[in-house]
This record gives sequence, structure tokens and C-alpha cells, in this order.
Amino acid sequence: MNFQYNLPVNLIFGSGKINTLGTETAKYGKKACIVTGTGSTKKSGLLDRAVTLLKEAGVESVIFDRVTPNPLTTTAYEAADLATENGCDVFVGLGGGSIMDAAKAAAFLCCNKGDVNDYIFGRIQGSDALPIILVPTTCGTGSEGNGFAVLTNPDNGDKKSLRGNFIIAKASIIDPDLMKTMPKSVLSNVGFDALCHCMEAYLSRIGQPMTQIMSLEGIRLSATSLLRACQDPEDAEAWDNITWASTLGGMVIHSAGVAAPHGLEHPASGLKNIVHGSGLAALTPVIYEASIDSAPEKFSMISTLLGGKNAYDCVDRIYHLLDELHLHVTLSSLGITEENIPWMADNCMKVSAANIQNHPCQFTRDEVAELYRKAL
Amino acid sequence: MNFQYNLPVNLIFGSGKINTLGTETAKYGKKACIVTGTGSTKKSGLLDRAVTLLKEAGVESVIFDRVTPNPLTTTAYEAADLATENGCDVFVGLGGGSIMDAAKAAAFLCCNKGDVNDYIFGRIQGSDALPIILVPTTCGTGSEGNGFAVLTNPDNGDKKSLRGNFIIAKASIIDPDLMKTMPKSVLSNVGFDALCHCMEAYLSRIGQPMTQIMSLEGIRLSATSLLRACQDPEDAEAWDNITWASTLGGMVIHSAGVAAPHGLEHPASGLKNIVHGSGLAALTPVIYEASIDSAPEKFSMISTLLGGKNAYDCVDRIYHLLDELHLHVTLSSLGITEENIPWMADNCMKVSAANIQNHPCQFTRDEVAELYRKAL
Repeated sequence: MNFQYNLPVNLIFGSGKINTLGTETAKYGKKACIVTGTGSTKKSGLLDRAVTLLKEAGVESVIFDRVTPNPLTTTAYEAADLATENGCDVFVGLGGGSIMDAAKAAAFLCCNKGDVNDYIFGRIQGSDALPIILVPTTCGTGSEGNGFAVLTNPDNGDKKSLRGNFIIAKASIIDPDLMKTMPKSVLSNVGFDALCHCMEAYLSRIGQPMTQIMSLEGIRLSATSLLRACQDPEDAEAWDNITWASTLGGMVIHSAGVAAPHGLEHPASGLKNIVHGSGLAALTPVIYEASIDSAPEKFSMISTLLGGKNAYDCVDRIYHLLDELHLHVTLSSLGITEENIPWMADNCMKVSAANIQNHPCQFTRDEVAELYRKAL
Repeated sequence: MNFQYNLPVNLIFGSGKINTLGTETAKYGKKACIVTGTGSTKKSGLLDRAVTLLKEAGVESVIFDRVTPNPLTTTAYEAADLATENGCDVFVGLGGGSIMDAAKAAAFLCCNKGDVNDYIFGRIQGSDALPIILVPTTCGTGSEGNGFAVLTNPDNGDKKSLRGNFIIAKASIIDPDLMKTMPKSVLSNVGFDALCHCMEAYLSRIGQPMTQIMSLEGIRLSATSLLRACQDPEDAEAWDNITWASTLGGMVIHSAGVAAPHGLEHPASGLKNIVHGSGLAALTPVIYEASIDSAPEKFSMISTLLGGKNAYDCVDRIYHLLDELHLHVTLSSLGITEENIPWMADNCMKVSAANIQNHPCQFTRDEVAELYRKAL
């Protein structure tokens, strides 16, 4: 047994906890740059509420509302510039994974000069960031629980994460009530992403004692509660469970990483702006089918938590869940064609090398291409 | 579901990890105050090795070697004074729980003026501490995984902890090899303490999702491995497991607290300098016997992990384990008499009020006295 566990999160979890946003933010700054998306936090009234909560706690704010799904490196620069121009000393990320990741990256860029791609690919080491408060409104990415910010480079389609403990939120306010404005199709996508984080961290060759128990708990909670939450907006226990499973998923991948399914998905959604959970839904069963013999005990454990009997019905259980979630899709149905495969396979070996290494069995570039083909 | 989880530990775990002591300490300071005990780290050569490792990393050191079991508030002041006089900017705690707690308290006293008892009883809020590196040499207290430092006031026998995230170690170097110099009787005592931390945090009314899974894992590992480690110094897996269970125990009590057994034990060991694990061994079965109906599902889960069938054989399983560990003792055999009970019951309601509140059923002062009587 040999590991380092160093994940200084501060999780404030529970229904109604959004009301602590002002007082928590005031501990770290006087002027907040609120990073949010183009629509939903405005429609739901959450953005106005956040501004009011901050104001009541004596925190001024400016709003950056131009984050889109699969956020671009260039968007993070824009948010950082706005914050700097306005003298902001704290970031508030208000929204889903893309928004939280953009907020984390912007907070980082306020303190680290140069090309963010150099930091992403480890050519330069970052050191600091402005303090970050995160308020997730979707329960998928788990970004509130880790030091990752996944960004896409618009110049070449590379989708890869900036990583470091300096972009871990000073406080993550995780309020299950805020998840309930998600459309059902978004919920099934993000919920499946959270489950994938937990499954991949559990399967990862760099898993460790803390991440193993947290991963299994995340799988258990997703398995018992994701469908329930999709079917019943009033099932408070189910919403608590999937929200917590999502944060657990974010936490475990911080130390244990993700594996081949995320590794293969990033090139696809980097290329075609595919919804991440759907890309995972198309790829995960195909990749697991080719992996079971490399870790039968782990696949058996996952299968059992999903209602199966052993490693060899694990893929069936995942298809069953995807059917129930109306998420049984193929890469073709998401717009990927045979012609895209060579670029995706090459890109996967470039941006996802670490994820491929974490996987219980090792795939070559040609085997990756074949997995994409099977998932078409 | 409603909780805050904020435990910024940095755990460096594994056989041989002691070799990182110099480089880890050098990240935080240039001159270390090494806090250790009167004997075992000298006899084992660990103290010399620590000084050498620090020196090789460019860190000077001074040694405070006067910590005794159940460390006194006055000892913490002495260590703080030595550090201040010598211009130390980092503390290294090298030893068991008493030593780590003394190091944490001394690091705190270097930055916070006034009477430490005021901080312990919450009459003044502390704010900061010198950076602390902890190297446990026993696997019981779990002090390397939390922000507690248990101290005894020599003026009145109060045994209570100083608490705060500012005394969480910047790095805890947890090397199972360092545990192997413990005599078998010490191992059974500290190992049972670790198990009690996990069981009490699991039973605690302020337990939360993170602490519940960690507690159960700690109980499972203790149950499978404590006796094995006692019987076979070469069983590396068992030593890994009990060492990790101990750190887990320290982590879970940070958020979930301890319950009645620790609450009743502190007055006993505060009064008579009893070995903490033995005090717990005398009290735990008696207290659990009186508690099972208040949390039958939890006692059933504990019992199952200890090899039992349901809540009602939980106490039998604990006696069985204590027999195997040669730790089946009474308070009388530890030097406590009927005459001590009124003071202990009063002191328990004073210093352990929070622990008593955490317990699944609530005991009055007279019920506490009766529990002491049954444990005589």
C-alpha cells in the first residue's frame, strides 16, 4: 500500500445551503467575478439571487456570462481579463461543469502568465490562483470536488485538463435543490458522467484506499438513485444521493484519474461538441466489453452494485441502465463518422495518454481506433 | 443530508516513506523543532535518522524530548518556548499520539498568546500555527489525520482537546515500518483505540456520508488485521491495514467526533494516567451493552464486521477480540476505585459533554456514574 492523498476540499452540502454563498465568499474577497453560462442561471433566477446574497455579505460582483459547453481556453482568458480589469479578488463559478471549469481556469490565469496550454501539457508549472467558490447546478462533472479544469483549445481541438491543488475551490456549496432545474435529458447525461467517474476511478490502476471506498459509494448511490431522480423531482433522498455521488466522482478522479472511456470520449467531444455524457454512453459499454478479463473482480463488484451477478453481466447492466435513462446511443447518432476515427485515435493517444495508462488493460492506437469503430 | 466536510490532510503513506521527511519538511521551514518522547525514538534510531534526513534537505533542527503519555498543557508550553528561543519555523512530531498532540499544541502556542485552556474550552478562538509535519510511530490515535491535540491540565486533571484546522499537519508521513518497534502490549492498546475511533464515529449522531464509509472501512481493516499484526511482525498487509485504519480513525473523529466510550475514558486516564486503550477496553463493552437498542442497525453493522451476526452479539464480539488481544480488563484492574466515580462522573459531564451528546442514546450524570460502576 503506497499512496499520497492530498485533496483539501471544503464541501458545504445540503438543501438550502446556497444561502451561505455570501458569507462564504466574503471570507476570501471583496469583489467577485461570477462566472456563469448564457442562459439557465438567469432563467432560474439563481444568478440574481447570487448577486443579492453576495451584496448582503458586502461583496460586490461583476458577471461573466459567456461560458458555453466544452469551454474553450480562450473563454477562460476572457473571464480572467474581465476580473483583472474590474479588480476582482475572488471567483464564483455558478453552473455546470463547463462553467466551474472556466471559473477555475480564469482564477488560475489571473495569477499565472503565459500560454495556458503550456500549463495544461505540463511544460510550465503553475503555482497559485485567486480564491474560488463553486456552486454546481448540475450533478455530473464533480468539478466542485477536485483540482481539474477541462478546456478545449479552439486552434487544434485538444480537450485536456489543467490540474493542480491551487484550483481546488476554497468552498464548494453543493445544494441539491439547485439541480432540480435541469431538463431530464441533461440529468441523465450528467448523472451517467458521474457514474463513469466513479467506475473509472475504481478501475484505475492508480486507485488508492481512499478513492476505492469513495468510488464504490458513488457507484452504489448512482445505481440506487439516478433513475429515481429522473422519474420523481420530489424524491429528495434520490436527489441528495446523486448530487453526493457526483461530488464523490469529482473527488476520486482527482487522485485516481479517469480511464479509457473518458480518454476516448474527449477527442470525440473535442471534435464535434458532443454532450459529454452521451459520448460516454456510446463508448463505455464497448470499452468495458474489451476490458473485463483484465480486472474481473472489479467488474464483478461494479456489476453487483448495478444489480448484476458477476463481471460478465456488467456490460448488460450498463446497457440496461442506459436504456432506462434513454441514453442508449452510438457515436454515429452523435455525428461521428468513420472518417473521424484516424484523427480521434491519434488525438486520444496524445491528449489522453494518462487515462489510457490508468485503464486495467492497455490499448494501442489501432485498438483505440477499433473501439471507436465498434461504438459507431 | 446536510454536512460540511473540510479536512485538508496531506497523507504520504507507505513502507519507506520516512525517507521523504527531509524534503517534505524543507517545503515549510528551515529550522525544525523535533518533538519526541523520552525513549523509543532514540532506542530505535529513528530520531537520529530524522535529524540526518532533515540535515540532508538543508533543515536544521532542535530536539524537544520530554513528552510523556497523556501530555500536559505545560509540556506544550515548554516545547513552544524551546522552538521560539531557537527560531524554529516548523515542527516535526515524531512518535505516538501523545507526541504528535504535543507537537500540534506547541506549534499552535507559537502563534497564539494567552492560556491554552481558554482555547481548549472555546473561550478564545485560535487562528494559526507554525507548519507541522507528523510522523506516527504508533497506529492508534490517528492524530496525523486530524486537527485535534488532546492535552491534560495538571492543575485540575481536565483532559480535553484543542481543535482546529490550523493544527492539521501540512504533511503526515505514515510509514507502516515505523510501527513495528511497538511492544505487543502497546500495539493491542493503540490498535483497539483506533478501532474505537472508527466505531464511535460510525455511531455518532453527527456522522456524515464521508465519515460513515471511512469508519466502516476502518472497522473492517481493524477486524481483519489487528490480531494478525499482533501475531506476525512479518505480515506486511496486516501492518498496512492497521496503520491505515488508525489514520482513518483519526480522520473520521475530526468531523464525526467520538462518543460515550471516549467521553467516559478521558476522566479516568486524566485522573490515573491509565493507558488510553486499556481504559477504552474496560468501558466500551459496558457502554455498548446499554446503547444497542438506540441504534440497532449500526450495532448490527459493526457486529457483522467483527464476525458477529446481529446487534445483540456485538458486545460478545468485542469481548472476544479483547480476549484475543489480552486486553480484557476492568477499571479496578487499572487502579480506579468506587471512590473515584463521583469525580469522574462530574468531570465527564464537564469535559466530555460533546462526546456524550454524539452518542446514540443520552446518559445523565447518574447513568454515567452507573456505567463506571459496572466497568469496575
